[in-house]
Amino acid sequence: MGTSANTVAGGRGAAVPKDVDYAQYFCTYAFLYHQKEMLSDRVRMDAYFNAIFENKRHFAGKTVLDVGTGSGILAIWSAQAGARKVYAVEATKMSEHARALVKANNLQDVVEVIEGSMEEVTLPEKVDVIVSEWMGYFLLRESMFDSVIHARDRWLKQTGVMYPSHARMWMAPIKTGIGDHKLGDYESTMDDWHNFVDETKTYYGVDMTVLSVRELEEQSEKYINTSLWNNLHPNQVVGTAAIIKEIDCLTATQTDIEKVRSNFSLSITHENTKLCGFGGWFDVHFRGRSEDPTEQEIELTTAPSVDYGTHWGQQVFLLHPPMHLSEGDDLRVSFLMSRSKENHRLMEVELGCEIHQQSGKLLAPFKNKYYIE
Amino acid sequence: MGTSANTVAGGRGAAVPKDVDYAQYFCTYAFLYHQKEMLSDRVRMDAYFNAIFENKRHFAGKTVLDVGTGSGILAIWSAQAGARKVYAVEATKMSEHARALVKANNLQDVVEVIEGSMEEVTLPEKVDVIVSEWMGYFLLRESMFDSVIHARDRWLKQTGVMYPSHARMWMAPIKTGIGDHKLGDYESTMDDWHNFVDETKTYYGVDMTVLSVRELEEQSEKYINTSLWNNLHPNQVVGTAAIIKEIDCLTATQTDIEKVRSNFSLSITHENTKLCGFGGWFDVHFRGRSEDPTEQEIELTTAPSVDYGTHWGQQVFLLHPPMHLSEGDDLRVSFLMSRSKENHRLMEVELGCEIHQQSGKLLAPFKNKYYIE
Repeated sequence: MGTSANTVAGGRGAAVPKDVDYAQYFCTYAFLYHQKEMLSDRVRMDAYFNAIFENKRHFAGKTVLDVGTGSGILAIWSAQAGARKVYAVEATKMSEHARALVKANNLQDVVEVIEGSMEEVTLPEKVDVIVSEWMGYFLLRESMFDSVIHARDRWLKQTGVMYPSHARMWMAPIKTGIGDHKLGDYESTMDDWHNFVDETKTYYGVDMTVLSVRELEEQSEKYINTSLWNNLHPNQVVGTAAIIKEIDCLTATQTDIEKVRSNFSLSITHENTKLCGFGGWFDVHFRGRSEDPTEQEIELTTAPSVDYGTHWGQQVFLLHPPMHLSEGDDLRVSFLMSRSKENHRLMEVELGCEIHQQSGKLLAPFKNKYYIE
Repeated sequence: MGTSANTVAGGRGAAVPKDVDYAQYFCTYAFLYHQKEMLSDRVRMDAYFNAIFENKRHFAGKTVLDVGTGSGILAIWSAQAGARKVYAVEATKMSEHARALVKANNLQDVVEVIEGSMEEVTLPEKVDVIVSEWMGYFLLRESMFDSVIHARDRWLKQTGVMYPSHARMWMAPIKTGIGDHKLGDYESTMDDWHNFVDETKTYYGVDMTVLSVRELEEQSEKYINTSLWNNLHPNQVVGTAAIIKEIDCLTATQTDIEKVRSNFSLSITHENTKLCGFGGWFDVHFRGRSEDPTEQEIELTTAPSVDYGTHWGQQVFLLHPPMHLSEGDDLRVSFLMSRSKENHRLMEVELGCEIHQQSGKLLAPFKNKYYIE
């Protein structure tokens, strides 16, 4: 998708001006504390470290592009694994620190840090490998993969490999106490609102009742219809998990990833449990390409885990009220995720569900809207 | 200052595109919860309510402009006080709710809600009164008064009055426990950073020592050099307060308010106390104009108070380390506040201080930089 120099493709053809994109998105990445959060994620770091160093054959003597280099870590590892040349592209002023880090680790002859957006920079040559850590919450939040696709189509050799090579989105039914908290917060906010309306009428002679509809909307959106970051315990997953999206990073197009549409089935596996909502997460794999596979296949998963949690956590989509279900009950789920009109880096989800109970009973189907903020 | 249709004057001549201004500033005001926070501030509400209803002579049969009407409250009160016509201008979609509120209170024949920025809208006539609640933290944060000045120069009749008519900024020496907390947080963040550097070197073969300078900068900025919102108790004020800026809302120009430059003296009034920093706040007055004064002069102050705190709180500028001073010690303070290059709605402060102790001793002068975020 062609973009003019001062805009960023906004999905649905809507161009977002560069400086708005910076104010809304990029600016957090210019801060070291934010980079450090990701650099301190041992599961993430181990996966990329192993993916690169267990597969030196893909790097030694080769040219590499690191899309969104941040602190420069992946570029540095690529160079340490023997790359001939590494182009490390970073849109924010973090590039200056990446450059300093490269120099401090004596790799300035191999790693060239380039400040600019991937859609705008020009490289002197095509590359053998594109490495990038582009995954947002629930994989696609932030829509950074758009930039990886652009880089791949423009700068990856015909024989090139993608690191990671594959990505998948998963969903499962869950139980959680968060829903009760959120409902409680919502109810007390609405009580507070009603008191406020009474007082404003009494003391200030203005009747604000007509705004109650808007207040209800805003509060529902905030407490009930916005997905949450959470670090789920595996015990909270009360049924089977389903793959709702698969991406081949070598061939996926912008159109393929613009919307995520999936109909899938889940079964409850816990006896007498509560369905409080759905948890969503992702995994990526480093497999190389079929004609040129990795020696060592590496997986990075963000599934609920006791010891291997990541900074991504999982995304929780709450159901109000929770439903009492049991082992063998089936859920037929329709899922549609699209980009928000206001901000292509945020998402809107329509999640429909039909529940067929083991007893034969069919519960009233529902369809909920969620915002991934 | 002239502005083209799609930009907002950014101070220092720098134009900020409208959509960036929206992404960085206006967007919070489109939310009802934010309006409600201000509408629930009884001191604020009482002051404007009384300013209008105790001075009906300025409103009855007159034309009024409410700059940044938000929910529409000031426009509604102006109409209830007898205004012939009220133009209520609001830049965000909150204008739709203001319109609904006007209608629900049967004032649609008097109050016309206009969605748009003050710099862009056209009114059918000039007005007798401009009413606006434009004050940000420490008065000028958010730089909304720019828009009031623009409105006044374009739309206020020669004989018109401003509500409020005057504004002042104040500073005083304070004691507070926050500084110790912040210093503790800072120190533990830096310890955590050094551990991180060691681990990244050990496990991942990358030496991040060179980034420590940047880390130190970011953390100092965050914990030490950024002013804080606080609700100070009057007991925390350990010396005299000084007026550091006075604004006549009828005559102030853009240039007058672009920078706040002041040299002032403060005296410590507490025996054996700690100077932990400076507190800044403001007051506004509703006095009308000399040829046409208010019948009832009203004051809205945000000075430290037990019972009359406001949502503005005060701004706290911390000193590290605190200094042990005593009654009679004098502070000569130089203060310079300018707009941030990156965002004209945020401020940067240079605060210099010389301390002359009662004993005759002169402590080492210091000069600190602060960000008002």
